Amino acid sequence: MYPAPVERLISELGKLPGIGRRTAQRLAFHLLRQSDEEALALADAIREVKGSIELCSRCFNLAESGRLCMICEDGRRSDSVICVVEEPQDVIPVERTGEFRGRYHVLGGALSPIDGIDPDDLRIDELVERVTGSDVEEVLIATNPTTTGEATAHHLAELLRGQVTVTRLASGLPVGADLEHADEVTLGRALAGRRTLG
Amino acid sequence: MYPAPVERLISELGKLPGIGRRTAQRLAFHLLRQSDEEALALADAIREVKGSIELCSRCFNLAESGRLCMICEDGRRSDSVICVVEEPQDVIPVERTGEFRGRYHVLGGALSPIDGIDPDDLRIDELVERVTGSDVEEVLIATNPTTTGEATAHHLAELLRGQVTVTRLASGLPVGADLEHADEVTLGRALAGRRTLG
Repeated sequence: MYPAPVERLISELGKLPGIGRRTAQRLAFHLLRQSDEEALALADAIREVKGSIELCSRCFNLAESGRLCMICEDGRRSDSVICVVEEPQDVIPVERTGEFRGRYHVLGGALSPIDGIDPDDLRIDELVERVTGSDVEEVLIATNPTTTGEATAHHLAELLRGQVTVTRLASGLPVGADLEHADEVTLGRALAGRRTLG
Repeated sequence: MYPAPVERLISELGKLPGIGRRTAQRLAFHLLRQSDEEALALADAIREVKGSIELCSRCFNLAESGRLCMICEDGRRSDSVICVVEEPQDVIPVERTGEFRGRYHVLGGALSPIDGIDPDDLRIDELVERVTGSDVEEVLIATNPTTTGEATAHHLAELLRGQVTVTRLASGLPVGADLEHADEVTLGRALAGRRTLG
């Protein structure tokens, strides 16, 4: 019904999570109404992110291409604690509490045999390698307090037992919730009350 | 908190209507996770639409650059009736009824003195020019059945009185509704029962 380029834009917008055809149409017409400069700013931002953002070669957090992430590059942080999270976006809520001054390790997900996500699909070997023969004294597991996050935590605790102290975020986070959406106070308490695993 | 290009993407996504910061973050991380090819398809679709879509120089519907719109180019349609709508996206629901075989004229909005939208801001002169001394016998006003759409309809009826028959979509559309979201049956009835204005 619309000219082909408009149909294509609606179709691409409709592939975004939570964006149905009706919303995609509304967004497409918004972009059509905007000035070239405004609409192209979005296209350029997508292009720039894909061209300039990679995963940190040490911890797999987001980083600018060819560099370590901002946290790995920060010389004032402690190398003795590593906080393990599922996804890059989980780093932000932990940082926001202001209670953690160590490093991170981003697994890239959580163990979920039902979805075919095995230890090999996560950056677990890389974590073990970082810990082995290093100055790391504690690995704080901050995977989500969900079934898959807990399973991942127990798997890591088994693997690292005897090498370092393995801790887990304290309860305080309601079970079934999502780390990304936790408020600072709750998450701060969970950090303060972390307990030894296994 | 995020690398600058990621922050920029979140900010640009957050400028879209109905997309808050939380949703913008979710969309940004989705794009980060996607392959370059998938994510750039969206950037390219935006760029293509802005580069290749203009308004039809005759009716102001969407058209590929340098051409009339698909409806103005269609030689089988009648030149004797013009359907006047507010926005390009309002053409689609009228087309979908299958009951209209004339041409269109897209005003680019509706009169709304409170928002500073005067006759000069709409393509009203262009409509009068299309009608004057032409074969047009009927102007069917299909602006939204809202306060501003009704005001626009009456303004046009005044202007065109004596030159052509001016008709208005029949009631059948609930007042306060939006043409873009009307179902085909309701809108088809409204087309069939259109009445002379003024």
